[in-house]
Amino acid sequence: MAEYDLVVRGGEVATGFGTARCDIGIRRGRIVALAERLTDAAAALDAGGLLVLPGGVDSHCHIEEPARGGTAGEPAVTVSEESFLTASTSAFAGGTTSVVCFVPQWKGEGILPRLADYERRAARGMLDYSFHQIITDPTEAVLEREVPEIVARGIRSLKVFLTYEPLHLSDEDYIKVLVTARRNGCLVTVHCENYAAIKWRTGALLAAGLTAPKYHAWSRPPVVEREATHRAIALAELVDQPIQVFHVSCAEAAEEIARAQARGLKVWGETCPQYLTLTAGDMDRPGFAGAAFMCSPSPRSPEEQGRVWEMIRRGTLDVVSSDHCGFSMGGDRGKAVNGRDAGFDAIPNGIPGLAARLPILFSEGVSKGRITLDDFVRLTATNPARLMGLAPRKGMIAVGADADLVLWDPRKKVTITNALMQHAIDYTPYEGLEVTGWPVATVRRGEVVMRDGVVQAEPGTGRFLPRGPYAMVQPRGVLENGFDAAPPRG
Amino acid sequence: MAEYDLVVRGGEVATGFGTARCDIGIRRGRIVALAERLTDAAAALDAGGLLVLPGGVDSHCHIEEPARGGTAGEPAVTVSEESFLTASTSAFAGGTTSVVCFVPQWKGEGILPRLADYERRAARGMLDYSFHQIITDPTEAVLEREVPEIVARGIRSLKVFLTYEPLHLSDEDYIKVLVTARRNGCLVTVHCENYAAIKWRTGALLAAGLTAPKYHAWSRPPVVEREATHRAIALAELVDQPIQVFHVSCAEAAEEIARAQARGLKVWGETCPQYLTLTAGDMDRPGFAGAAFMCSPSPRSPEEQGRVWEMIRRGTLDVVSSDHCGFSMGGDRGKAVNGRDAGFDAIPNGIPGLAARLPILFSEGVSKGRITLDDFVRLTATNPARLMGLAPRKGMIAVGADADLVLWDPRKKVTITNALMQHAIDYTPYEGLEVTGWPVATVRRGEVVMRDGVVQAEPGTGRFLPRGPYAMVQPRGVLENGFDAAPPRG
Amino acid sequence: MAEYDLVVRGGEVATGFGTARCDIGIRRGRIVALAERLTDAAAALDAGGLLVLPGGVDSHCHIEEPARGGTAGEPAVTVSEESFLTASTSAFAGGTTSVVCFVPQWKGEGILPRLADYERRAARGMLDYSFHQIITDPTEAVLEREVPEIVARGIRSLKVFLTYEPLHLSDEDYIKVLVTARRNGCLVTVHCENYAAIKWRTGALLAAGLTAPKYHAWSRPPVVEREATHRAIALAELVDQPIQVFHVSCAEAAEEIARAQARGLKVWGETCPQYLTLTAGDMDRPGFAGAAFMCSPSPRSPEEQGRVWEMIRRGTLDVVSSDHCGFSMGGDRGKAVNGRDAGFDAIPNGIPGLAARLPILFSEGVSKGRITLDDFVRLTATNPARLMGLAPRKGMIAVGADADLVLWDPRKKVTITNALMQHAIDYTPYEGLEVTGWPVATVRRGEVVMRDGVVQAEPGTGRFLPRGPYAMVQPRGVLENGFDAAPPRG
Amino acid sequence: MAEYDLVVRGGEVATGFGTARCDIGIRRGRIVALAERLTDAAAALDAGGLLVLPGGVDSHCHIEEPARGGTAGEPAVTVSEESFLTASTSAFAGGTTSVVCFVPQWKGEGILPRLADYERRAARGMLDYSFHQIITDPTEAVLEREVPEIVARGIRSLKVFLTYEPLHLSDEDYIKVLVTARRNGCLVTVHCENYAAIKWRTGALLAAGLTAPKYHAWSRPPVVEREATHRAIALAELVDQPIQVFHVSCAEAAEEIARAQARGLKVWGETCPQYLTLTAGDMDRPGFAGAAFMCSPSPRSPEEQGRVWEMIRRGTLDVVSSDHCGFSMGGDRGKAVNGRDAGFDAIPNGIPGLAARLPILFSEGVSKGRITLDDFVRLTATNPARLMGLAPRKGMIAVGADADLVLWDPRKKVTITNALMQHAIDYTPYEGLEVTGWPVATVRRGEVVMRDGVVQAEPGTGRFLPRGPYAMVQPRGVLENGFDAAPPRG
Repeated sequence: MAEYDLVVRGGEVATGFGTARCDIGIRRGRIVALAERLTDAAAALDAGGLLVLPGGVDSHCHIEEPARGGTAGEPAVTVSEESFLTASTSAFAGGTTSVVCFVPQWKGEGILPRLADYERRAARGMLDYSFHQIITDPTEAVLEREVPEIVARGIRSLKVFLTYEPLHLSDEDYIKVLVTARRNGCLVTVHCENYAAIKWRTGALLAAGLTAPKYHAWSRPPVVEREATHRAIALAELVDQPIQVFHVSCAEAAEEIARAQARGLKVWGETCPQYLTLTAGDMDRPGFAGAAFMCSPSPRSPEEQGRVWEMIRRGTLDVVSSDHCGFSMGGDRGKAVNGRDAGFDAIPNGIPGLAARLPILFSEGVSKGRITLDDFVRLTATNPARLMGLAPRKGMIAVGADADLVLWDPRKKVTITNALMQHAIDYTPYEGLEVTGWPVATVRRGEVVMRDGVVQAEPGTGRFLPRGPYAMVQPRGVLENGFDAAPPRG
Repeated sequence: MAEYDLVVRGGEVATGFGTARCDIGIRRGRIVALAERLTDAAAALDAGGLLVLPGGVDSHCHIEEPARGGTAGEPAVTVSEESFLTASTSAFAGGTTSVVCFVPQWKGEGILPRLADYERRAARGMLDYSFHQIITDPTEAVLEREVPEIVARGIRSLKVFLTYEPLHLSDEDYIKVLVTARRNGCLVTVHCENYAAIKWRTGALLAAGLTAPKYHAWSRPPVVEREATHRAIALAELVDQPIQVFHVSCAEAAEEIARAQARGLKVWGETCPQYLTLTAGDMDRPGFAGAAFMCSPSPRSPEEQGRVWEMIRRGTLDVVSSDHCGFSMGGDRGKAVNGRDAGFDAIPNGIPGLAARLPILFSEGVSKGRITLDDFVRLTATNPARLMGLAPRKGMIAVGADADLVLWDPRKKVTITNALMQHAIDYTPYEGLEVTGWPVATVRRGEVVMRDGVVQAEPGTGRFLPRGPYAMVQPRGVLENGFDAAPPRG
Repeated sequence: MAEYDLVVRGGEVATGFGTARCDIGIRRGRIVALAERLTDAAAALDAGGLLVLPGGVDSHCHIEEPARGGTAGEPAVTVSEESFLTASTSAFAGGTTSVVCFVPQWKGEGILPRLADYERRAARGMLDYSFHQIITDPTEAVLEREVPEIVARGIRSLKVFLTYEPLHLSDEDYIKVLVTARRNGCLVTVHCENYAAIKWRTGALLAAGLTAPKYHAWSRPPVVEREATHRAIALAELVDQPIQVFHVSCAEAAEEIARAQARGLKVWGETCPQYLTLTAGDMDRPGFAGAAFMCSPSPRSPEEQGRVWEMIRRGTLDVVSSDHCGFSMGGDRGKAVNGRDAGFDAIPNGIPGLAARLPILFSEGVSKGRITLDDFVRLTATNPARLMGLAPRKGMIAVGADADLVLWDPRKKVTITNALMQHAIDYTPYEGLEVTGWPVATVRRGEVVMRDGVVQAEPGTGRFLPRGPYAMVQPRGVLENGFDAAPPRG
Repeated sequence: MAEYDLVVRGGEVATGFGTARCDIGIRRGRIVALAERLTDAAAALDAGGLLVLPGGVDSHCHIEEPARGGTAGEPAVTVSEESFLTASTSAFAGGTTSVVCFVPQWKGEGILPRLADYERRAARGMLDYSFHQIITDPTEAVLEREVPEIVARGIRSLKVFLTYEPLHLSDEDYIKVLVTARRNGCLVTVHCENYAAIKWRTGALLAAGLTAPKYHAWSRPPVVEREATHRAIALAELVDQPIQVFHVSCAEAAEEIARAQARGLKVWGETCPQYLTLTAGDMDRPGFAGAAFMCSPSPRSPEEQGRVWEMIRRGTLDVVSSDHCGFSMGGDRGKAVNGRDAGFDAIPNGIPGLAARLPILFSEGVSKGRITLDDFVRLTATNPARLMGLAPRKGMIAVGADADLVLWDPRKKVTITNALMQHAIDYTPYEGLEVTGWPVATVRRGEVVMRDGVVQAEPGTGRFLPRGPYAMVQPRGVLENGFDAAPPRG
């Protein structure tokens, strides 16, 4: 029997500090050797002229979330279009090998029933996965009995919404979640927008007959996000609980995170490709067409994009996730579930981006000189893995890590089309965007699951990733008590 | 012949993102394999229960600098006590394997004659080395003809002083150096203190009869350092030339660096163990004894130490060097060269710290929970190597890098004594300091040069490290145009 | 008939920019002349050797607020001990001649009934007065019909609480009040503390058996105030409505105001003598005694006092009011209304300070060199008058203004006792404090109402002060469209 | 004999806090009464429908400075075109009644000879005047003997240049001046630009053949001003000496002042109308024409103007002077002294603005709603008077002050022409600018010296204004130890 099941040969391997030219030896799905030249391999994959990067870790994806009717005011997040099967294909096509997605809680219910259902769904895919547990109804039963149970099973992050009807938590409930997270060693991830402010603005816009998709941006200006970001941080500071602020769209919200980090708080900020490439102007299209670009927070101005890049460069925003949340534009479901004449408030929020995340960030970032390759690797793999407690198994190329790799051609020019995304959604908001740099092969735990755009993987091979006490990283990417922390292996 | 000349077995190997348990295979002085288990080795070094870290890179050391008389006012930096031989021993004892030291320029002369002399001296040691070229007399001949020549030989950093008689440069001369550096692709490193301010304060103190060593601190308060730091940055901003601010001792100077980084400038800040452990109070000892702690900038208050740690944590200060510059306390040379009754202004500035750097930073930093192991590795090896253009050859454990390693026992408790420092100087300012964490073996290019405190290496085996266009790193440690930059190999 | 009813002779008259030595001629209650020497006076008041300052304007006083039962959690503000009669005496004793106090709204009721009742009460006193209208239940009837009515009657500020059960407003209700204020040209004044945060902390403290008065401070640390301050500002920014943040107790809350002012927002900050002289430590006394110092926000640390002075000096906090809200310590009412063994949460918040405000601010501020006389005049009279729309009738010594004056002996040393306060409350938290500088005579609309501590004034002579569109001042004390704004005269 | 020599009747009189409608009674040149109605007047001036403001105090004017040859590199400031006679006419025409101008020091000489000469010149005018003493050669004789002598004569401010050949001081000399000022109770005013930086940029531009006037702006970008501003402040901080930063042209320099003020330092900032209305683009005209707008610091971008207004609004910049320094454009003297083909570096810096200052600031500021009338009064009269130690004699309308008044029609629209400026210079850079608000009469010490543009005043009636220990004002305009400071009366 050969020493290595697979050897990846001759690539420029990302070390996190530049690259090293070496072979990667893989056995039983794990990296067991990095060396100048490895022989004795059952199979080989030629990476000559290519970069070899850790497989993308997308720590913010909505996949196959079971739907239940929302309420008036703000629509519920009800995502069933993208299944774990289609999401896996799309992820592999785009170089991503692990995701953290969301188990919903329905008001009036506990969290375990949804979890059981969701585990069944997730197990059908090919992606490795973990869950954020959404908390919308923090009853004593949920917080005292169910949260400890899911933590014991390796789900170590709670997600809360400060806006959306009926998801949003009051300050009182948010504090309860923070306290529970602290007791159980979970991270809390937060959607930061002020519910009451958006409700007021939305009401005023609708009352004035301003119902087109573009008014979505008018309903939630940056100050609404900054307010909730400051509040989320302040209450976390009070409770002494680390949080990650999701999908930061503007500099003034990011600045609150920077101030918190300078005070020494464990607060992290995430942003997404949409805030680097889309603008509020994209929603200003005839009729319903603008709905294709509608997500929350809203895409901002072109100037704001530059400021978000700056906040990435400063290290304030240190994770780039997709916030993949796809709704098709055609037919009478998806974006049009409430009708194509519905006001902007009744159109589901969210855009698909699982496959587009890495190519867009590489092209707009590395190829255009805004960030370095090291930044790219950290933003898309190492940092999310570490923050979510998936490292050192995921997110880096090191002996002992899972052999999740993406072979990347940094010079390949591609024009994004929806077909390339290989997802279940009938459009991509990035249609026509030209990118330089593209994934040419994806390896998941030692198995080549994508080559030249063709995804081949057995449904049901994705594995649940239990997480230990989350690897708390300092605001700028350093591991706490690093050398002897040992998250459990799945 | 065995495949590996040496295998380091079973350690927890620092990856830069935590550690991986693996063996390190070394051939012809370079790391050629990292793997779960390596056999076929000519020799093995057991690292069981130990950390394996990249050998320390000390980018700021004064070693065997040839002396020439200084002038009244401020003494010249004239360091001949520590030879490359003694410095090598001391460095290996403390886990450091590479240094960047200083070629002087004497006013009225060119730089090449000094360089030739200095190269001969450096070649006698065992440490790998590069040079900063000090510029004190930026004549046209120096800037137009000599700088390009040394750059071609791989010396890619110019050091300037904004204080010290007769070393300090006027703004006009500093600008000339910046312009020359920009044209030649050199980094500029800067000693930032305001010459005129110190001169005024010193004069006033001496006139008042306040001549004891402790008045050294009074002669150069933080505002003097902040002023020069802001000016050094502003003029670099004007010329668009990256700089590193040396030995930042206080938060207000560091804050200027942080502001510059937030503006997007390529400005980096270094600090040293003395600013984390010594205070101005240490100089307040009877008679001449305080001279043992005298360096510039001056050690500050205990509160200021906390702020400097904070600036390390925030990433503003991203290199910790020793600024080793030793003068013995005994006899009538060294610190007492101008007599033991000389005023504080006539006592040579500088303290020894080559061997103490890593143990102090590990103990005060990692063991006390102020920084992580990853921070430690970056601050002491990866960042200085990258900023100085020595990466990826030095500063990290990766396939292709030089096999410079230090085996570190994170739990070993040691009380620092001068004997342990193994340097030529007759004291250490850290005498009696208890540290947790200690280097138990040092490997330089695959050769075990220190074991349990015993240094064994052949004089003259240290190598000059030519540097390519310096690997410009962004303020928080990321490589620019990373994946295809290739500094020349020596 | 003499030309002047009264001439104040020979004082150093505060001009707002230093002092001028001149006489003040008064006719029918108004200043009609300022001149080097005025004769033809029916009466004269000798101010030789004294400062003549504008009578104090206290824009934040709780006087004779009708009580109704509070609810569990946080006690209602129910202040009936201090009547307008006793408050007038106390105010005159301390050099204050005008107040703005509070008309309550009871949940489930409109505001007009309370106003009618309150107007009757206020009319019995001797102080000139205006009202802030508290909004606790912003129904459509209140906002659409009643607010316009009270504005028409010259009540042009709405007060909201972001904490206290049952007073606190949700964000939704707070936005409604802001929108209404904007439409009607009212100022909104805000008590900024986070309700849910205090509730959580209070519950945790009580559950732990920590019920003593000193835990009041533990229940509401500065971050709780900073959070609400940022939120109050952000929502006002969204609605574009000016606000004044009441009783700022700490630098971090003040910093939010400073940031808002630097963004160009019309946000002002008020502080009170208690935050400059009392500390959380004052509440740490045996048994019930600490209750005497309990107010909200809580007094902070001694260090924080220095920072609040700094924020005054920087101009961020530009009004010093008393937040007079007295509850006697003796008997079974007042502070002990819920019993002397009640937990800290059941003790009414508030301390008396109407008479002490000017002497304390003068002594701790002007006499100790922290602020200037000009600062004092602006903080205690000119700024509150201008911000509340009472200028130019109140708050300055100018031709045409009401002849409200206080003759001040800047060198007089007095030890504060409760008797000197001349209020209805049985204690002062400032008992024993030595001050330098004391009011020796008070003139209200040309009538000498206090001399050497003896108050003589006819009950029922206080006048309601209707306010026009409030004289909007810029953050640092300048009048908008100043030269032709003309608030109505009462 | 009538009680009042002159009564100004029925105006809206600026009090510093809005306006009061009252008469102003004047006797022997001083205000002796402010009253609703004054009779018994020898003469009356009707101010019905007009504002009555304190006469403008221009604390930064170059008038009749004796010329001596400059040196290559940067031209000396040699201003003889504008005499005190013509300057007085121009000042009265524009509503200004007092100036502080400059006594030069020529290198190699003492200061007293120049002073004697300059006193003779100044005495021929009609304006009241004081002097800043320029220090270019701080010899021991100057600092130890001459400075105390001029201070005894009431000249209490020293002016230094950090740029200009041969005027600029080294840091060492600047520190000497600060120390001397501190010992003698003088203010130091500073021209902040980095000499070496400008020299380098100028050399590079000229070497590249870029010699047109517009390259003046290129030779001194904002960073050059920011650097010198920070350095001027830092060294003043070291010495503990208050300074005023002259002619701040950009936000980044102003921000350094704001930071210093927030640290509690006594640092003030001045700006000028040119930085609010002119831009670098104005110098981009064919041939020599751009020279008409050339001053230092250079006019900046239109965006920068907005930021300077913002810094005025924030109170960071609290004096607006003219920096009047006129050179005619015609003939072969003035701007063309070195020839019309001279490079930008050989053209004298400076523009005339004595008469334009008040109309421009009123129109662009008050009429356009950027500042209030109170701001205007403080920026142009009260603040400069207080900072320069001229208050309470100058700068405000109060009993006891000099009767320096300007009757202002806030609604009058005027198009600025050079004829209206009534100065000796053959152009105004503001030609064609339309302003709303214009001075219709000027009163100097009780004498009507301008009416409807016609100036009538006896040459030689201007008086020297000796200053006492300068009335130190806090950064935002408050008097230190205000109520008993008493500067000497002239």
